[in-house]
Amino acid sequence: MVLHLELQERGYDILLERGALGRAADYLNLNRRVLIVTDDGVPPIYAQTVARSCRDAVIVTVEQGEVSKSVACFERLCLRLLQEGFTRTDCVVAVGGGVVGDLAGFVAASYMRGIDFYNIPTTLLSQVDSSIGGKVAINLGGVKNIVGAFYQPKRVLIDPEVLSTLPTLQIANGLAESIKMAMTSDADLFALLEREDPMKVMDTVIERSLRIKKNVVEQDEREAGLRKILNFGHTLGHGIEASQTENGLYHGECVALGMLPMCTPAIRARLLPLLSRVGLPTSLEGDLEEMLELASHDKKCKGSVISVVRVEEIGSFVLSDEEIEDWKAGIRSALSKN
Amino acid sequence: MVLHLELQERGYDILLERGALGRAADYLNLNRRVLIVTDDGVPPIYAQTVARSCRDAVIVTVEQGEVSKSVACFERLCLRLLQEGFTRTDCVVAVGGGVVGDLAGFVAASYMRGIDFYNIPTTLLSQVDSSIGGKVAINLGGVKNIVGAFYQPKRVLIDPEVLSTLPTLQIANGLAESIKMAMTSDADLFALLEREDPMKVMDTVIERSLRIKKNVVEQDEREAGLRKILNFGHTLGHGIEASQTENGLYHGECVALGMLPMCTPAIRARLLPLLSRVGLPTSLEGDLEEMLELASHDKKCKGSVISVVRVEEIGSFVLSDEEIEDWKAGIRSALSKN
Repeated sequence: MVLHLELQERGYDILLERGALGRAADYLNLNRRVLIVTDDGVPPIYAQTVARSCRDAVIVTVEQGEVSKSVACFERLCLRLLQEGFTRTDCVVAVGGGVVGDLAGFVAASYMRGIDFYNIPTTLLSQVDSSIGGKVAINLGGVKNIVGAFYQPKRVLIDPEVLSTLPTLQIANGLAESIKMAMTSDADLFALLEREDPMKVMDTVIERSLRIKKNVVEQDEREAGLRKILNFGHTLGHGIEASQTENGLYHGECVALGMLPMCTPAIRARLLPLLSRVGLPTSLEGDLEEMLELASHDKKCKGSVISVVRVEEIGSFVLSDEEIEDWKAGIRSALSKN
Repeated sequence: MVLHLELQERGYDILLERGALGRAADYLNLNRRVLIVTDDGVPPIYAQTVARSCRDAVIVTVEQGEVSKSVACFERLCLRLLQEGFTRTDCVVAVGGGVVGDLAGFVAASYMRGIDFYNIPTTLLSQVDSSIGGKVAINLGGVKNIVGAFYQPKRVLIDPEVLSTLPTLQIANGLAESIKMAMTSDADLFALLEREDPMKVMDTVIERSLRIKKNVVEQDEREAGLRKILNFGHTLGHGIEASQTENGLYHGECVALGMLPMCTPAIRARLLPLLSRVGLPTSLEGDLEEMLELASHDKKCKGSVISVVRVEEIGSFVLSDEEIEDWKAGIRSALSKN
């Protein structure tokens, strides 16, 4: 299935197809110099499979995890492109999860002021969320995604077969974003996830999630308005994530917890069993005050006001600007009732 | 005088007005947090004047010269924005020449994936050329402008009065770009420069140069075609520049020398006295072969072919793709006849 993202001259196709990884050359222009960026948590066979489809590929494997979304890693990859003599007509391909896509995407956006970028996401989280929409970035000063660009890929290749090697926890990590999108935009998807084993309806879950994200990104490429709904659960979620030390919760687990206080008690009563069933956490552990404090340093804050997304009916959303202190108080209250 | 650059939602005004620096708040939205980037070669009073117009300004003064267009400097400025708590609605202002504009522009383009950027160029070179068009970048691995973005400023403020403090050589440095633009696009401007003392007609020289650049950038924002004409004189020019050690020739001096072999003998006979009169060099010193070799590593090369701009009649241009070896031979031949 092909979804076309309508973004004027920056529009591109997202191809969702089992086995697409092995047919990359049919869908991407790999008849040029190609820098493939992957990480050491991704089965190496995926990058190698793509490399075999290229005329002239260089594979760079970075360390798994946020640590690779650094200025140092960005600089190293740009230098590698330079040393390998990459020109404006060559390209970068990300083969991996969100970290690899964000890093490789920002490198592609910046090298020679932008060369072609293809994304082949290999985690459910990146397949349903981060691989489309054109947000690329690295971290700095302990803050995630603070330096980056809006840079659309030329094409995204999604092969659900790669998910078969993914640990259960990583599947749950991705499902959190699908649940998030269902909560704000697709009551039928939410009901499907409540009713079926997600692994059995995975292609449908991915497709419906992509359609939601496509619709939002098309209407608001640069996060001026509607795109905020994709942040549902992410404000407190980022606070939870920022408070983690090593081996803490995954992004999706933080988002799952971040959604709970942002919906009504009735919806929370449906959300809790769904989170539990797909292996996501349902109760927050750790220092809530620290999390709230970290959350209030988010990009979504202006002065004493924070832009938040609430769900009062599944499949729809309410955007509101709230006083940070009121928002914190509401969260304390909602969580104490869990 | 206001020139509006038509670039859909990225369009912006260029204001050319004597004394505009002191009235910055009338033209720019400075009622927010403002990071002013300048360098230690710019009279500090300029940045201070702008700072006085701001509600809440931070001035960062970087070292003068290309050395500041580094990843380290880029990182330091982004960290500063973060530490000062800049949000998406705050802005960056460049007060200085091309180095400051390129560096500050790339910081503004990247911080939080892009915040507002204003440019107040204080050298003739940046007033007529680098401050408009949206090309921002830093250097890496000894290669200029290899990492950057196309990122348009929100407004450009050009105050010709600041040129009064500029050394003669810096005026000549800027005039080289005006001469370049006249050569490819404006025979009347070329004749004016031949006829008058440039200092006496400076506002006209700046305005006509800006109109040429505006016209080119509007038609080709991302350097896909026409914009190549702005590279007239720059291919060999970059080779000359790259071969320089410290205290070598200025960019404009290299461009002046780079134009000579790219026009016909008859035009060269008019160009030489003009360059000489405005204080630009007319004969190349150093190792031509090294310069040609360095030039052939340019972004404008694809395989064995180089995209070049030639002038066969003043005010017009010829774009051609040539075999690098043929291009080198032509330059050797043209320069040996000087």
